[in-house]
This record gives sequence, structure tokens and C-alpha cells, in this order.
Amino acid sequence: MLDFKFISPTQFVFGRNAEEALVSESSKLGGKILLHYGGGSIKKSGLYDRVKSYLAEAGADFVELGGVKPNPSLFMVRQAIDLCRTEGVTGILAVGGGSVIDSAKAIAIGVPFQGDVWDFYTGKADAQEALPVGIILTIPAAGSEGSNGSVITDEETRSKFAYGSDIIRPVFSLMNPELTYTLSAYQTGCGVVDMISHVMERYFTNTENVDLTDRLGEAVMRSVIDIAPRVFANPEDYEARAELMWASTIAHTDIVGLGRNDNWASHQIEHELSAQYDVAHGAGLSVVFPAWMTHVRKENLPRFVQFATRVWNIDYIAGREDEVALEGIRRHKAFYESIGMPTSLSALGVTDNRYDIMAEKAMRDGPFGEIKALNKEDVVAIYTLAES
Amino acid sequence: MLDFKFISPTQFVFGRNAEEALVSESSKLGGKILLHYGGGSIKKSGLYDRVKSYLAEAGADFVELGGVKPNPSLFMVRQAIDLCRTEGVTGILAVGGGSVIDSAKAIAIGVPFQGDVWDFYTGKADAQEALPVGIILTIPAAGSEGSNGSVITDEETRSKFAYGSDIIRPVFSLMNPELTYTLSAYQTGCGVVDMISHVMERYFTNTENVDLTDRLGEAVMRSVIDIAPRVFANPEDYEARAELMWASTIAHTDIVGLGRNDNWASHQIEHELSAQYDVAHGAGLSVVFPAWMTHVRKENLPRFVQFATRVWNIDYIAGREDEVALEGIRRHKAFYESIGMPTSLSALGVTDNRYDIMAEKAMRDGPFGEIKALNKEDVVAIYTLAES
Repeated sequence: MLDFKFISPTQFVFGRNAEEALVSESSKLGGKILLHYGGGSIKKSGLYDRVKSYLAEAGADFVELGGVKPNPSLFMVRQAIDLCRTEGVTGILAVGGGSVIDSAKAIAIGVPFQGDVWDFYTGKADAQEALPVGIILTIPAAGSEGSNGSVITDEETRSKFAYGSDIIRPVFSLMNPELTYTLSAYQTGCGVVDMISHVMERYFTNTENVDLTDRLGEAVMRSVIDIAPRVFANPEDYEARAELMWASTIAHTDIVGLGRNDNWASHQIEHELSAQYDVAHGAGLSVVFPAWMTHVRKENLPRFVQFATRVWNIDYIAGREDEVALEGIRRHKAFYESIGMPTSLSALGVTDNRYDIMAEKAMRDGPFGEIKALNKEDVVAIYTLAES
Repeated sequence: MLDFKFISPTQFVFGRNAEEALVSESSKLGGKILLHYGGGSIKKSGLYDRVKSYLAEAGADFVELGGVKPNPSLFMVRQAIDLCRTEGVTGILAVGGGSVIDSAKAIAIGVPFQGDVWDFYTGKADAQEALPVGIILTIPAAGSEGSNGSVITDEETRSKFAYGSDIIRPVFSLMNPELTYTLSAYQTGCGVVDMISHVMERYFTNTENVDLTDRLGEAVMRSVIDIAPRVFANPEDYEARAELMWASTIAHTDIVGLGRNDNWASHQIEHELSAQYDVAHGAGLSVVFPAWMTHVRKENLPRFVQFATRVWNIDYIAGREDEVALEGIRRHKAFYESIGMPTSLSALGVTDNRYDIMAEKAMRDGPFGEIKALNKEDVVAIYTLAES
């Protein structure tokens, strides 16, 4: 177990009508709020009007900026920072899923910063100040409602970079499972893959003596695997939606990753895919992760055997450990397929070969990943394994 | 799953030399600190001198009050509140285990309160303000370093009452597993029982659709069960001490209890035992919990079967569910015995019969507990079951 620091100061309000708590929580965002959201879905659902009425009830002044797209763009973040400075914004309310939240977090550190916000994402600066960010969550997937991370895409250079700091953990997250009833099966599936991936990036480590966090991670994965089919069978199953929503948060607060080296190799490989083809993050991970597992499994076979036996209940067979590991990967892939997710580049609609370009970009900081430090050849091999 | 609110704003610093972070963290306690501790063990170990040197390095002014005993007393809390008011104390540093921390939390809400601090514990008042509390943890057991709870004993009336509020969650907790090397086997065992009990009080619920928190709780219990023997075999096994220490925190932040009705029946029954006989809390729980389980199991047999099959890996046998449940309880009890804990009142040295008095006091607010609302006869029956 490695030394660690951990703080998760977010006030979570969870359950039916949780968004009504905005009336009391909004004061944490100061006197002038940026209301930040995505496409029109919150207007269609009526949530937008309700949010405005809660803000009015709280006597909160606000400006708004909608239109955040999946893989939120640096361009809009910069635009929003200008807006916030002009308007004297004191805090940001993100109403949406991971993209809106990640965009809000970027704006939050960009506003008080003298330099360019992209410097945080390229590793040139570390944020010392941030506007407070509050959340009304509508998509359980990214876990950004409780995490210290934000991922932004520079569309010009096709670069998708992450920044992490406790300073951007939300001050409140209001989570009403009913708001997720209208998500399509595909959006729900992408979310399931995303939250499981957040656990797996931490689970697949070479750090030893991490039994507690292993078991916590397995608890989240097994729960999501058990619960997901109920959501697809009945999208308005409150109980199943609720468990899935809270699982997305637990998967990424870092409670399942403390004291161990994280991996994030599949995320980095997926980010290049998203940056090139603008595919949904969860769908990209569904393709990349099984290929990554297959490629690296022999570097730490006992860990893949543990995953297969504990998460997928496969019997341990002495002397046939690699078969056990492969069966675990096979069942994991089959699970993703069972919830309608693509598990190959072809199923994702990616049929041209830009493996070299993507691998080259992925290598910008040198070899990466925990189970095996991947070089360019590894990355190309993983894209190739993911073809079908 | 029930609606819930959750916030855990504590800054955890975990690992070797974690206590050194006091130099940077102590400013969170303001300009005048109460250094609060227990018996002489921190002086013997040298921790006391190191803490004073860190405070000096930080330029922090402090007064001190040691001598907190297990089952911390209302008398000392009141004494400390007077001292803090006289000295203008702005924050409290607790160096010790659950008793010292619980005492510190009581002082923290008592100082700014106009009325009597005991009013919080008797349910007559709710805390609106608290001095900040920081922790250097030396005993992994109570989980008070990350919890919203505090338990205080009024020795005059032999009443042991709990108070809970997010306002008393610590602002920082510094956790160095090496500081726990010198704990005796008995102290370590009491801690193991205490942390497992914190999970079990949440685990044994009638709330349905709590799969995720069930599995998180099982993860903590199984980890502690696996790890504990390593600590007894080698008290200076850093890795095992580390996992046990973090498990104690996770067991009681409430992350394993969100969205469900808690139980706390065994705690209440044990509190009467501690108040009467001043037994160690963990030892009392080791006696009470198996008896409680045996007494109530048929009220929600499927949950006890789940516990037996998932935590103790007992095969499910169709038609013999009660035997499966009982085997789970038997193994749990045998585990406590294997780590040197008493599982009967006689082993605890309690041989006179004050069941009626204790049951009467336990009933002060009427029937209690979640699996079955216990009445006085139930409580007497549980003490009787616990005799041997």
C-alpha cells in the first residue's frame, strides 16, 4: 500500500427531487452564477425551467451558457472564461453529465488564472485557485460529480487531455435518479462502461497489499454488472437507476484507488480514438479495454486471474491460469456486448487505420500505463487487437 | 435505496510519517490549539514530543489536556470546555484513538454552545457550530477519525450516549500505521471487532435494493477478516497494519451505510454493558453481536443467509437456510475467539445479572433496532444468550 492523501469535500444530495436542494445549496456558488449545460435535453425535460425557478427562489443572479458537446471543447471553455470575467461570475452550476461538468471545472480554474487554461491540461501549470462548482447530475457515467478530474479536447490539434486537482472537486452534487430515466440505451451503456472502466484503471495495478481497495473495486464492478440489465429491461426502474447512479460516483471519487498506482492506459488509448473520431468515451473504452487486457495480461497474470475468479466467478484451475484470465476477459467483453456496446473498432465504425498517428500522439510523454509501460508498438498492437 | 445526504470533508493524510503533516495542517485549527490526549502512551512512544515540535515548527500556540480514558467522560468534557473558553481555544488536536477523538468532538461543539453539552447527547439540542477538530490517529478501531459521531459517558448516571452531526467531522486526520505497532493484541482485537461492527450495524438492514452498499460492506468485512491474523502474527507488519487502519476509517465514514436504515441495536446493548461495567467497547461488541444475530436472524433470514454465503463463503443449501445462517454466526464468533476476543459475558468477566437494569436503560427511547425493533424482553433475552 502506498502513502496517500485523500479529500472528497463534496456535499452529495441523493434521491427523488434532489435537485430542489439547489435552493439552499446555490449560495455556495456566490452572488453570480454561470448556468452551464449541454444540448437541449434539459429544456425538453423541463429541468431547465425548474433550475431557473430554484435559482429565482434562492434569489441568485445568473448568466447562462449552454451547448456543451460530448468531448467538451477548449474553444468553448475559453469563451466561457471570457464571459465569466466580463460578468463577474463567482461560481458555476453544471447541469448535465461528465462533459458539462468537466467543462465547468475547466472554466472554474481558468477564470482566476492569469495564463492560458490549457496550460493546466498540458502540465505547464497547477491550479492554485478555482471558482466553486456545483452539479445537478443527469448522466451517471463519468463520475466527475465527485472526482478531482476534468478532460478537455482541443479540437484544432485533436488533443484530449486530463487535469486533476482536489481544488476542482465540486462543492455540491445533486443526484436524482429519476432524471436519468430518459437516457437512451446507448447512453446508459456508455455510462456503464465508463464507470466500470474507472474502477478497472485503478484495479489493474502492480502495487501489492491492496486487498481492501481491491475488494471495494470488485464490489462496485459486481454491483454494476448485476444492476445494469435491470436498467435496460426497465429504464424507469428507480431502484436500479439509483444504484447505477451512485456507483458512477463511488467508482471515481478515488475511494477504490487509494494507496496504489493507477493505470489509465486504456483511457489514454481511448482519448486518442475520441480525439480522432469523436466517438463516445464509453463506447471507445468498451473497444479498447478488452484489447488492452488481452495484450498485457501476462505481465501480471495473478491479477487477471483474481479479476476472473472474483468478478466473474470463474473457477481457479491450477496450471491453466492464462485460460482462466482469458475467460475473464471473454466474459467481460460478452457483458459489454450484452448491453449493446461495441467491442471492436469495426463495430464502432472505425475502419481506416490511423493507428500510427494515434499511437504517436499517445506517446507524447513517453511510455505509459501501470501493468506494463506501453511503448508505441504496444499501442499499435492494442488497436490492432481491437479491430474485430 | 433511501434518499440520503453525504459529506466527508476530512483531509486524510495516510502513510509513514503522516503525522509530520501537522506542520502544514495545524493552521486549520486556528491560533490557539487544545492538545488533547489519553494516558501516557504517547509520551512513552515519543509521539508527544514530536507533536509539540511540529506545533512549534508551525508557530502554533497551544494548551494541553491529557488523561482521557476509554469510555470518555462527560466530566472531563465539561472541564475541557471551561479550559477552552478561558484560554480562547480556536481548535482541537486529538492525538489518540476513538475515546480521545470523541472527547475532542464533544468539546468542539460544547465550547460555542450556550447550553450544556450533554443536551446534544440526550437529544435536546442540535449543534450549529463547532470548533475545528484535527486528528493524529494511534488506534484503528472506532473510525471516529472520519465519522460524524461521538460517544460520551456520564459516569454519574452510568449513561453512554451518542451524538452525530456532519459538523463534527474532523478537518484533518493524519494516519501513520507505524504508530499502531505498539498496540497490544487485546487492543488490536478490540479494534478489529469495533470496525467490523460498524459495518454490520449498517449491513443488517431491512432496506431493499442496496446491492452496492451491501457489497462495499462485505468488501470491508472480508478484508479485515483476511488481514487481522497477519497483524497478530507480526504486530510490525506495516502492510497489514496499514490495511487495517484504513479499513477502520472506511467502515465508519458511512460510505457503506448510505441509502439504508441503520441498525445500531448491538451498539446500544453494548453501551449499557460499558456503562455498567466499564468494559472495552470492542470486547463488549464481541459478546453482544453474535447473541443479537442469533436472536433476530429469523426476522430477515435472507439477509443472514447472504451474510453467511458472501462473507463466510458458506454454501447455500436449499431448504436449510436457517442452518446456513447459524453457521455464518458460528464462524463469525469463532473468528472473534481466534483473535483472542471474548464472545460470552462470562469470558468478559461479567457474572452478576443486571440484565433488567441494563435493558430498562436501553429502552429509554422505546423499542430500537432495524432488523427487529427490540423490546425489553428481547434485550434481556440477548444478554441471556450472551452468557456463555
